[in-house]
Amino acid sequence: MDFSENAAIAAIREELGEAGCLRIELGIGDDAALWQPSRSDRSAISTDAFVDGVHFQRRVTSLDRIGARAMNASLSDLAAMGARPRLATVALGIPHDLTLGDLRSLYRGIARVGKGAQLAVAGGDCTASPVLSIAVTVLGEVRASHAKRRSGARFGDTIAVTGALGASAAGLRTLGDSHLLDGALRQSALDAYELARARLSEGRWLAASANVHAMMDCSDGLGRDCARMAERSGVGMLLDRIPVAPEMAALARATGEDAEELALAAGEDYELIVAIATPAFAHLQARFHKRFGGALLAVGYCDAQAGVRWRRSGATVPVDRYGWDHFEVGEKR
Amino acid sequence: MDFSENAAIAAIREELGEAGCLRIELGIGDDAALWQPSRSDRSAISTDAFVDGVHFQRRVTSLDRIGARAMNASLSDLAAMGARPRLATVALGIPHDLTLGDLRSLYRGIARVGKGAQLAVAGGDCTASPVLSIAVTVLGEVRASHAKRRSGARFGDTIAVTGALGASAAGLRTLGDSHLLDGALRQSALDAYELARARLSEGRWLAASANVHAMMDCSDGLGRDCARMAERSGVGMLLDRIPVAPEMAALARATGEDAEELALAAGEDYELIVAIATPAFAHLQARFHKRFGGALLAVGYCDAQAGVRWRRSGATVPVDRYGWDHFEVGEKR
Repeated sequence: MDFSENAAIAAIREELGEAGCLRIELGIGDDAALWQPSRSDRSAISTDAFVDGVHFQRRVTSLDRIGARAMNASLSDLAAMGARPRLATVALGIPHDLTLGDLRSLYRGIARVGKGAQLAVAGGDCTASPVLSIAVTVLGEVRASHAKRRSGARFGDTIAVTGALGASAAGLRTLGDSHLLDGALRQSALDAYELARARLSEGRWLAASANVHAMMDCSDGLGRDCARMAERSGVGMLLDRIPVAPEMAALARATGEDAEELALAAGEDYELIVAIATPAFAHLQARFHKRFGGALLAVGYCDAQAGVRWRRSGATVPVDRYGWDHFEVGEKR
Repeated sequence: MDFSENAAIAAIREELGEAGCLRIELGIGDDAALWQPSRSDRSAISTDAFVDGVHFQRRVTSLDRIGARAMNASLSDLAAMGARPRLATVALGIPHDLTLGDLRSLYRGIARVGKGAQLAVAGGDCTASPVLSIAVTVLGEVRASHAKRRSGARFGDTIAVTGALGASAAGLRTLGDSHLLDGALRQSALDAYELARARLSEGRWLAASANVHAMMDCSDGLGRDCARMAERSGVGMLLDRIPVAPEMAALARATGEDAEELALAAGEDYELIVAIATPAFAHLQARFHKRFGGALLAVGYCDAQAGVRWRRSGATVPVDRYGWDHFEVGEKR
């Protein structure tokens, strides 16, 4: 790189601005950032790491969008807990060919998403590294009674998602093969992948309902993530409707693949997976629509059988085969 | 790597044990970790990143010690704030040649230091990466009136350190050239480098004194870190005694270098740099010795001149030339 650590810190401070720091007492530049936690709430923390060539590709995605994406992916964990963001720290591994302008672009994306989430980027670390890597830690706050775990789903609960699935995965596929989609659909798939928004407002709103028993974000695919929620909750799940985003439907038409199968395996949309007391579902769904415009989409329900199964056209198959392991698939998480 | 993400998480949980998790309500395995912050204290957070080939060398240091070192380096920031650790998250970049046994060793070191600091490793992330990298976020708590900033040093304050400097840097040099030191001195230098302990108890004890005006850890060398404290505090500093660790003194004798110059530039000891009201220094020093055995060593004082200067044998020189920039020197931070 063509700059010193002091130049990097100065550029970062400039991109972050001062606005985000009002909610903390002491931020970047001291040994640790300091703040007064809410006296009535629990604190929630989550860390995610993103590596060039694994979670993103510098050669096809702008640094601004890489920064935004890393923040949204991290914030999605707070959304899934029903927490409101308070601050973040960012540990950056900087390769030799990253310029100060690149660093500014990256932090512009980080700052924009941070500001949108009313969060202060309170500290972090920059270090030389053979590859661009970004580790984001987000800290939020949530009323103890509102915090939603993965383990709360009950027999008979309706399983719903906060939106159709697969737009982000379609965007990723289009990055690799630009002929798969075209025009507006291609752009909206790319935007869904690169600018996928953490469902923070939706998460907090849903978390406030006692009829919401469990919540998590759908980052590794509906199949895999439902399997995690089912296992932690000690229930089985039967999925009977897979809502497919238009971008993924178009991609499947273009390639001749099965759109629902793709959507079941598709991660990174940051839609929330929610287990809801079935008698309360219709009412909650109507209120959700009124509040957010989008739909709360039922995908199945919890039952007493083993594992998560997918039923369509009369046949029922286990979903273990869908979704991915972070280590097995090198492309993304 | 030869293992799946699930196997990695299982191994990590096993190495961490359950003990550390008692102080948090929800840890590894949900979207975020959850805990009840202290109602009367401030929260403090700090993030540090460590990369193979930059901050450590996998080929010469055991993974257990690499894990321990990453934790101590991170905890040192809480020590400098006077905070007691509460939890940590760890983001790991795992290269293809790391085995599950290696991962266990790394976490054994992390867990040992975490347990010693009464801290829960509450979450994190594992991802494939071309190089082993470890980003640690530590969260601690401190009474608002005790939190020590870098910016509090005043004219006339005595500047002191919690121990002699350079043992860790001597250890690093020995790693590169095993003939520099031998026998017990070599081992103690290596231990100082690989097992350098965050001064958590010392930091909390010093932070409780109103006569301690500023505190930071000496991670980039006394010269450079004093310059940071002086700048943030709006004071100058004159250093007139550089306490040299025996390991560094022996190394300097072996190489014909200047021991004090080396000690001034030597980082990573995690000794604390403390600005203390001069009238209270002798008494605090006596109490520190009684409490911790080790000595609180005066290295100079704050004055009204510009910058940090080093006076010896009658000559006074600015210290800007000592210490290092994380980006300029590839070996360590």
